[in-house]
Amino acid sequence: MRTVHNFSAGPGALPRSVLTQVEKDLFSYRDTGVSVMELSHRSAPIVELINDTTDRFRALLELDDKWEVILLQGGGSLQFVMAPLNLSMEGDHVDYVDTGYWSQRAIKEVGRCHRDVHVFSNGRPGNYDYLPGPDDIKTRQDARYLHICTNNTVVGTQWHQLPRVDAPLVIDASSDLLSRHIPLDNVNCLYAHAQKNSGLAGVTVVAVRKSALLPDQGLPYILDYRSHIDQHSNYHTPPVFSIYVTNLMLKWLEYDIGGLDMMSQLNTEKSQILYDAIDNSDLFSCPVIQKDRSQMNVVFSTGSKETDAQFIAYCQENNMTGVAGHRSRGGMRVSLYNAVTLDDIQALIDSMHTFEQYN
Amino acid sequence: MRTVHNFSAGPGALPRSVLTQVEKDLFSYRDTGVSVMELSHRSAPIVELINDTTDRFRALLELDDKWEVILLQGGGSLQFVMAPLNLSMEGDHVDYVDTGYWSQRAIKEVGRCHRDVHVFSNGRPGNYDYLPGPDDIKTRQDARYLHICTNNTVVGTQWHQLPRVDAPLVIDASSDLLSRHIPLDNVNCLYAHAQKNSGLAGVTVVAVRKSALLPDQGLPYILDYRSHIDQHSNYHTPPVFSIYVTNLMLKWLEYDIGGLDMMSQLNTEKSQILYDAIDNSDLFSCPVIQKDRSQMNVVFSTGSKETDAQFIAYCQENNMTGVAGHRSRGGMRVSLYNAVTLDDIQALIDSMHTFEQYN
Repeated sequence: MRTVHNFSAGPGALPRSVLTQVEKDLFSYRDTGVSVMELSHRSAPIVELINDTTDRFRALLELDDKWEVILLQGGGSLQFVMAPLNLSMEGDHVDYVDTGYWSQRAIKEVGRCHRDVHVFSNGRPGNYDYLPGPDDIKTRQDARYLHICTNNTVVGTQWHQLPRVDAPLVIDASSDLLSRHIPLDNVNCLYAHAQKNSGLAGVTVVAVRKSALLPDQGLPYILDYRSHIDQHSNYHTPPVFSIYVTNLMLKWLEYDIGGLDMMSQLNTEKSQILYDAIDNSDLFSCPVIQKDRSQMNVVFSTGSKETDAQFIAYCQENNMTGVAGHRSRGGMRVSLYNAVTLDDIQALIDSMHTFEQYN
Repeated sequence: MRTVHNFSAGPGALPRSVLTQVEKDLFSYRDTGVSVMELSHRSAPIVELINDTTDRFRALLELDDKWEVILLQGGGSLQFVMAPLNLSMEGDHVDYVDTGYWSQRAIKEVGRCHRDVHVFSNGRPGNYDYLPGPDDIKTRQDARYLHICTNNTVVGTQWHQLPRVDAPLVIDASSDLLSRHIPLDNVNCLYAHAQKNSGLAGVTVVAVRKSALLPDQGLPYILDYRSHIDQHSNYHTPPVFSIYVTNLMLKWLEYDIGGLDMMSQLNTEKSQILYDAIDNSDLFSCPVIQKDRSQMNVVFSTGSKETDAQFIAYCQENNMTGVAGHRSRGGMRVSLYNAVTLDDIQALIDSMHTFEQYN
C-alpha cells in the first residue's frame, strides 16, 4: 500500500504497478543482462521500445497515418518555441488564447519568434476563473493556427470542448493528454510533456498533421520536427529511461485501467466527488465556474490565507502532499492525474471533513 | 556480479552500486514515502538534489564563482545550437575544428545559426585518424570562440592537450567530461550530456564563464542560458530522474573511485592495457596515431570486414556487448567510460587472444 497520498501538480504520482515493473527490470531489461539505462539508443530493444511507445500513443489517441508522432526532450517549454517555428513562418499571423500562467508562457515565447501574434482572452484581465466564450475568439483570416492550453493547472480550468474557430488549433495538452478523449478534428498539432499523466519529466510527445508541416525554412535541425520524424525519434540520443516509463504508463492505461474511455470515466468520477465535497462544504469553496472546472487540478480555498496554511499543514501531517496552491495564487490546488486513486481522494475528503469540524 | 560486459558507446554502463542505490530509493526517496520520480521539481528534496548536483560538478571540475553551471535537456545536440546563440551574435565570426562525426554535427547546426563560420581541419579530408596540429589552426582575430569536440567517439581520437589559440574555446566534452582533468584556463564554455561518463540520457551539464555571456539578444527564453542560470536549472521542469542518477554517479566518482585524479589514472590504465593488446596482436590493429588515441573509445579492426563481423559475433556470444564500430565506420569500437571496469577489459582481451588463436 502507498503510505503517502501524492497530489503534486507534476511531476506527480505514478501507479504502484509501474514502479514495481521498474524494480523488476532494473538490472536486466528484456533478458539483456543490463539495465534499460545502460542500453544503446540504437540497440534493437531500445529502438523497439521507442517505436512501441509512439505506436501506443497513436492507438490511444486514434491518430491515423495523416499524423506524425515524435518523442522529444525539452518539455512543453521547448514546444512553446518549436511549435511556432515549425508551423508558421517569420512574420506569419499566429493567434493565442490567454487562459493564465502556462498559456502566458507560450505567448511570451512566441513573442521572441518573429511572428505576428494576436492574443484573445475572456475580456476580464487578471480573472482566469472561467474560459473565453465563442464571442471572445475570432481568429484572423490568415492565422496559421490558434494556440490554446487545454487544461490550466494553475487556475484550475479546462476546455471541455475545444473552441470552434476557423483556424486550425495547436494545443498544449501537457496536463490532460491521455486523461480523456480530446477530439482532434480541427487540431493540427498537440504536445504534452509526460510528467502529469504519462510518465516522468524529460520526455514530451508531439503529434503533428503531415499537412501542417512547412517546407524547409532553414531552422536548426534539432528544432525542426522533420529531423525527428525522419529518424523516428532517434535523431539524437533520446531520453531512454523516461520513454521506458512512459511506455509502462501507456500499458498500464490500456491493460490495468482498460483504455482511454475507462480512464476518462474514472477521472470524471474522481474530480466530481472532490468538487461535490467542496461545494457541500461551509468552509471550502472553488472559484472556478462550474462548466470550466478542471478534472485534473482542483483549486479551492477557505478564503483565509491563515486557515489555508493550517489545512495544508494538516494534510502534510496526514501524509497528503502537493496540496498547496501554485506560488502565484496561494490557496489549495489538488492534482488528480491518472495515477491518483479514488482512495487518495477519499482520504483528502475525510481530512477536509475532520478539519472543517474543528474549524 | 555483472554478467554482461557493456562496451556501448553511450548510453553506456553504469556502476553496479549506482543501480543498487536506485533500487533502494525506488519507492521512497529520502523518507518522503514517494519515488524520486513522483516528487515536484519545486519540493525541497528535489531543489536540494539539483543544487547538490551542480555543486558537485563545480567541485569536481574546480570551477570558481566566475562560472555558471546549469543542467539542461536536449543533449549535446541542442548545445550545438544554444552555444553559438548564447556566446556570439548574428554575423559574428565563430571558428570550428572538424575532427569527424560529432564535430561535423556541431558545424552543420551552427551553419543554421546565421554566424560567419570558419572550419579548420588536419588538412587531410576524410582522414580523421589524427588531430590537427598547431599549424593547422589559426583562429581569426575577431573569432568569438573556437569550438572543438574534446573526444571523438566515432573515430577514436581525443585532445590530450587542448589547442593553444588566441580565441577562447567552447568545448563539447560530452564523451570525456569527468573521465580526466581538462584544463579550463582558455575555455569559455563546456557542455556534456550525461550518458557516457555521468549518468543517463536526458540531462546535459553546461558550464559557462560569466564574462562570456552576452547581453539579451532576444533569444527565445528557453534557449537562453540566462533563463536557466537565473532559476538555478529550474526554469522549467528539469529531468529529475536523470539528474538524480547523475548525482549518484558524481558521488560514486568521489567516494567509490576517490575523485577525478583516481578516475583519470584508472582510465589511463584501462585504455593502455587494451591498446597494448591491440598493438601486440598480429590480427588486430588501431588506425589512430598513438599521441591522439582516445582513452574513451578504442577503435580497431582486423582489416577484414568478414573477420570483424565474426569477432563481434564472438564477443556477443561471450556476453560482451557494444563492440561493433559506429555504423559510419565499421570495424570495432570499444568504449571504456568511467563505469567500465578493468575486469570488463580483461575479459575482452582474453576473447581477443582466444579468437586470434583460432583465426
